[in-house]
Amino acid sequence: MESLEKKQYQIDFNNILDHVRVFAPATVANMICGFDVLGFAVDHPGDEVAMYRVAQPGVRIRSIAGDDGRLPLDADKNTVSACVKMLLTHLGLQDELGVEIELTKHMPIGSGLGSSSASTVAGLFAINTLLGNPLSKTALMPFCVEGERLACGHGHADNVAPALMGGITLIRGHNHLDVISLPVPTELYAGIVFPQVDVPTRDARQLIKEKVLLKDAVTQWGNIAGLVAGLYESDYDLISRSMHDVLIEPTRAILIPEFYEMKSIALAAGALSFGISGSGPSVVAIAKGEAVAMQAATEIQQHLTAHDIDSFKYVSAVNVHGPKILG
Amino acid sequence: MESLEKKQYQIDFNNILDHVRVFAPATVANMICGFDVLGFAVDHPGDEVAMYRVAQPGVRIRSIAGDDGRLPLDADKNTVSACVKMLLTHLGLQDELGVEIELTKHMPIGSGLGSSSASTVAGLFAINTLLGNPLSKTALMPFCVEGERLACGHGHADNVAPALMGGITLIRGHNHLDVISLPVPTELYAGIVFPQVDVPTRDARQLIKEKVLLKDAVTQWGNIAGLVAGLYESDYDLISRSMHDVLIEPTRAILIPEFYEMKSIALAAGALSFGISGSGPSVVAIAKGEAVAMQAATEIQQHLTAHDIDSFKYVSAVNVHGPKILG
Repeated sequence: MESLEKKQYQIDFNNILDHVRVFAPATVANMICGFDVLGFAVDHPGDEVAMYRVAQPGVRIRSIAGDDGRLPLDADKNTVSACVKMLLTHLGLQDELGVEIELTKHMPIGSGLGSSSASTVAGLFAINTLLGNPLSKTALMPFCVEGERLACGHGHADNVAPALMGGITLIRGHNHLDVISLPVPTELYAGIVFPQVDVPTRDARQLIKEKVLLKDAVTQWGNIAGLVAGLYESDYDLISRSMHDVLIEPTRAILIPEFYEMKSIALAAGALSFGISGSGPSVVAIAKGEAVAMQAATEIQQHLTAHDIDSFKYVSAVNVHGPKILG
Repeated sequence: MESLEKKQYQIDFNNILDHVRVFAPATVANMICGFDVLGFAVDHPGDEVAMYRVAQPGVRIRSIAGDDGRLPLDADKNTVSACVKMLLTHLGLQDELGVEIELTKHMPIGSGLGSSSASTVAGLFAINTLLGNPLSKTALMPFCVEGERLACGHGHADNVAPALMGGITLIRGHNHLDVISLPVPTELYAGIVFPQVDVPTRDARQLIKEKVLLKDAVTQWGNIAGLVAGLYESDYDLISRSMHDVLIEPTRAILIPEFYEMKSIALAAGALSFGISGSGPSVVAIAKGEAVAMQAATEIQQHLTAHDIDSFKYVSAVNVHGPKILG
């Protein structure tokens, strides 16, 4: 795995782009049963970074849209610009190159859909693209993890890895980052609903107990192993049997209103599984086929509306490409 | 999954065999990182059951060899005959059919290599073969698990599943038995050493704590997921990176003399991984290629000899067929 150690890269100053616009996807961490190790990207929502090369060295934020004014414009405090600066410093370009950033958030903050990861990955993918791709995605990964640390105080890869690599990723190792891309069955869809309730990531983390019963851990890793096998086999029944979380969901579900009612609705609609996206409050119905995912998400949203809870709904295939360059 | 409920099977009494001789393989439960969920079969050692149809109804043991007189000849107390009787009762044949059993143990008892499982599976495979295979392997599995319960007081599938199915098996679920066969990379070999020290399974189980740290469980299930992916990809490096047990090995290794010295020897010899087979005291070096497995096992045995510990050594590919009919 690439570390953050200083390296020599070939940058061709004549071929640095004037500007680039990048979309990076939202992500569903944990994938129901794989707490802290699994995650997948979706086609939408996601965040957009437009980056412009300018004469004056340094990294600046021009504008942020879609954040309701919640994100800092100060380039040292904003995660996206701070990450871009970190990469430029790593490349020894901090005093030579100037870039300005327009960040457009197309997804809610604090939703459990990897909002900060999407922005971070968009920013780092954009600067790497601008420079002619001196770093591979694997080499970019540690910078994305550092971005997550800046944003959440927790340098974790379970959102940035799928946002950057696309598809379904396994974080086998955290101390020595080891990210493995798993196969994506073609008919796997996610029906995501984000209820408009506030569940800060830190609180959701603090609820989780330090110790767990070994017998529950055995159940969990049997399920994770079954899920990985199911993905390789495109065995939707095995995927469905495996996607149960006996350890984290019972605790975190408490924070999410109507959780078990939504779960019943999703499963009755034919979803393979249902659970919390990341630390919530977004929930996700995993389904075979777009129609089932849509049906589950629509009925969940209707249920929330009937209980006076506003929500956003996103239905998407698993995004297998990660960030993409726009227009 | 098939249950033990009574079912109707077609048995053609004119085509029941006179006798059959079956070999069933030893097994390495846990496969280093997959406590209680993973296991694999080896080509040798293993146990042999010769079964003869006789006129007098009932199940009897004719002889047992290779057990140093440790196993009961009483057909109700012997696990093999008790399982065979259970199956015949299930099929409604207990008062109609008579069989006599010769059990030859080609492997040590209490070794951590699934000795009782090999006998049970050989016996059940033999009676099913004798009867013209009325049950599929999947349908036979619950009887094998019951046999394990009779033998160990613990109805667990992590040895019987690979012994019956062959190859590498994942026990995704125990309560509702869900056995998944995983792919076997062709160059995967096991170098097994059984040191002549006594570690009863029950003691080895009792040492294990009821609760574990969630962060260790996360490491473990990241590794299990990595191992499953590595098996599908035939990625020996990923297999090697993944085969670490941070939860069970530190406790059980205490019971095994020279454990960490043997581990160093195995890894220095080029093994992908090294750990405890089942609850020990057998240890296993997992290697790419027979030569490395042999080298590791030979050096481990030499080390034990130098420390006045007798041992048996077995080097084998993963057995992908399970039980086989002999001669």
